[in-house]
Amino acid sequence: MAGFQPKNPDYRAISIATFEAQRAMKTMGISISRLGPGEVDLAMDYSPEFTQQHGFIHAGVITAGLDNACGIAAFTLMPAGSGILTVEFKTNLLAPARGERFAFRATVVKPGRTLTVCEARAYAMHGGAEILIATMSGTLMALAPREAAVKAKALVPA
Amino acid sequence: MAGFQPKNPDYRAISIATFEAQRAMKTMGISISRLGPGEVDLAMDYSPEFTQQHGFIHAGVITAGLDNACGIAAFTLMPAGSGILTVEFKTNLLAPARGERFAFRATVVKPGRTLTVCEARAYAMHGGAEILIATMSGTLMALAPREAAVKAKALVPA
Amino acid sequence: MAGFQPKNPDYRAISIATFEAQRAMKTMGISISRLGPGEVDLAMDYSPEFTQQHGFIHAGVITAGLDNACGIAAFTLMPAGSGILTVEFKTNLLAPARGERFAFRATVVKPGRTLTVCEARAYAMHGGAEILIATMSGTLMALAPREAAVKAKALVPA
Amino acid sequence: MAGFQPKNPDYRAISIATFEAQRAMKTMGISISRLGPGEVDLAMDYSPEFTQQHGFIHAGVITAGLDNACGIAAFTLMPAGSGILTVEFKTNLLAPARGERFAFRATVVKPGRTLTVCEARAYAMHGGAEILIATMSGTLMALAPREAAVKAKALVPA
Repeated sequence: MAGFQPKNPDYRAISIATFEAQRAMKTMGISISRLGPGEVDLAMDYSPEFTQQHGFIHAGVITAGLDNACGIAAFTLMPAGSGILTVEFKTNLLAPARGERFAFRATVVKPGRTLTVCEARAYAMHGGAEILIATMSGTLMALAPREAAVKAKALVPA
Repeated sequence: MAGFQPKNPDYRAISIATFEAQRAMKTMGISISRLGPGEVDLAMDYSPEFTQQHGFIHAGVITAGLDNACGIAAFTLMPAGSGILTVEFKTNLLAPARGERFAFRATVVKPGRTLTVCEARAYAMHGGAEILIATMSGTLMALAPREAAVKAKALVPA
Repeated sequence: MAGFQPKNPDYRAISIATFEAQRAMKTMGISISRLGPGEVDLAMDYSPEFTQQHGFIHAGVITAGLDNACGIAAFTLMPAGSGILTVEFKTNLLAPARGERFAFRATVVKPGRTLTVCEARAYAMHGGAEILIATMSGTLMALAPREAAVKAKALVPA
Repeated sequence: MAGFQPKNPDYRAISIATFEAQRAMKTMGISISRLGPGEVDLAMDYSPEFTQQHGFIHAGVITAGLDNACGIAAFTLMPAGSGILTVEFKTNLLAPARGERFAFRATVVKPGRTLTVCEARAYAMHGGAEILIATMSGTLMALAPREAAVKAKALVPA
């Protein structure tokens, strides 16, 4: 799960730029805390605006963090000019998302030319303890540079 | 997939109240558009605050809608006083979440005393067309009334 | 979910041939009972050789049936010369696989040039009743004709 | 992921007995190669009877191995007299199941009174190399001793 060799020497800057182009991440208060080839950690503070009925963070927000961690981890290993799509993910919720801060840690399990499989874990920092609250396994798809350019043109926001 | 008999005669009011107790739903602009025994439709308008890098709605937000639709659909069939937890879900993303409005439609596949399995579909309304953009299958867990009361006490927001 | 137009006029023969080339299907006693564009039903008799500790059919065998139903359903819509791979699937087990006969019914949810998403359901025929025992959602991948030919050459059995 | 404390001092014998009561495992040639609290490795030799169209092991058989590894890993941590059911699992297929021997390695991620979440990986031993070919995340359910006894009585093989 270590020693991945990025194909794009500029992977760091382009991964950060792709992450920051997502307004949803800013709205949810999610940021990159660590980024390497095939490995990404995201961080999020507790926010009452994203809670469910017991005052904990909503599973959809936890999933958004896990999905983005997977997506950026996969993206670090793709060739320059690629686009990226999430194909599917599965989340197991292990404990309530109760805490002051949250971490989403993803690693690439198997990189591929078209499909990359990642795993991620979500942790809650609560009163000094770090608790595993959710896991994700997901499949990400690389859009070849030419395809990605065409899509980007077509994909003017609604 | 039809003809479910709710155990709680008050299922409608309690399901709506549980949905509305989730601040995340309000923040994301998601509301109930239809609710029956074992069946729930949610609706959401496009909001630029929840977009990814191409200006479409983020997969995590789509997942939050699908998860809530499943949760409330399962909840309509649970006995009075029950609590509800999501155990797991899997989402397949079929098309970009591009549209002016979105619908999340869930049905119970198999209700159970402890576990209930649901399926849901997300649709984008875009220029008059309705496009299937994502599917979910998920498992929800009922907390027995006594357990739910204990949890609710313990679960004061962080 | 209906009205799919096959790209390969010969889809029927090639789908059946691909199914029958799988010795595992024969060993498990699984056969095609219905096949149309984007839709496949498989059938299996109860066999004590494939049971778990309570004498019911093992979840892995049920999954093999569901996976094959999805794979062949996806395959019916692929261009002539394509190969097919399963990318991922998720199975929810709803009831014990207790019965004299079993059916696996798959439909394509979203066909694609590279990826196709399918859903399938497994039923047990037990004492005259038909019981839903498991669901699957899965992603299948088409190998382009050229790629498929290269792979077929490389893939001589171990 | 280490240091689990079994509740049943006899967990080893009962786990092995439960595994061996599954005829499907014997039919597929799957056996236990290592077993500890919350951790199980299974082994399987290549068999032409369980192949797909390219002569590799069928994904359903790989899934049967992964599911059983998860099930027995979860079972090692359950109280004496418990029964066990698989609730759901998701499998990502990473590479063709091409090899002379296969290993299925599962660990408990989160044990629980009712639900236990496990992860497992499948490896192919091919020409001296060990290749990761599939991953699973799954949810297992404990049946309380009384419930398990009632079910066992009811569950006479069809």
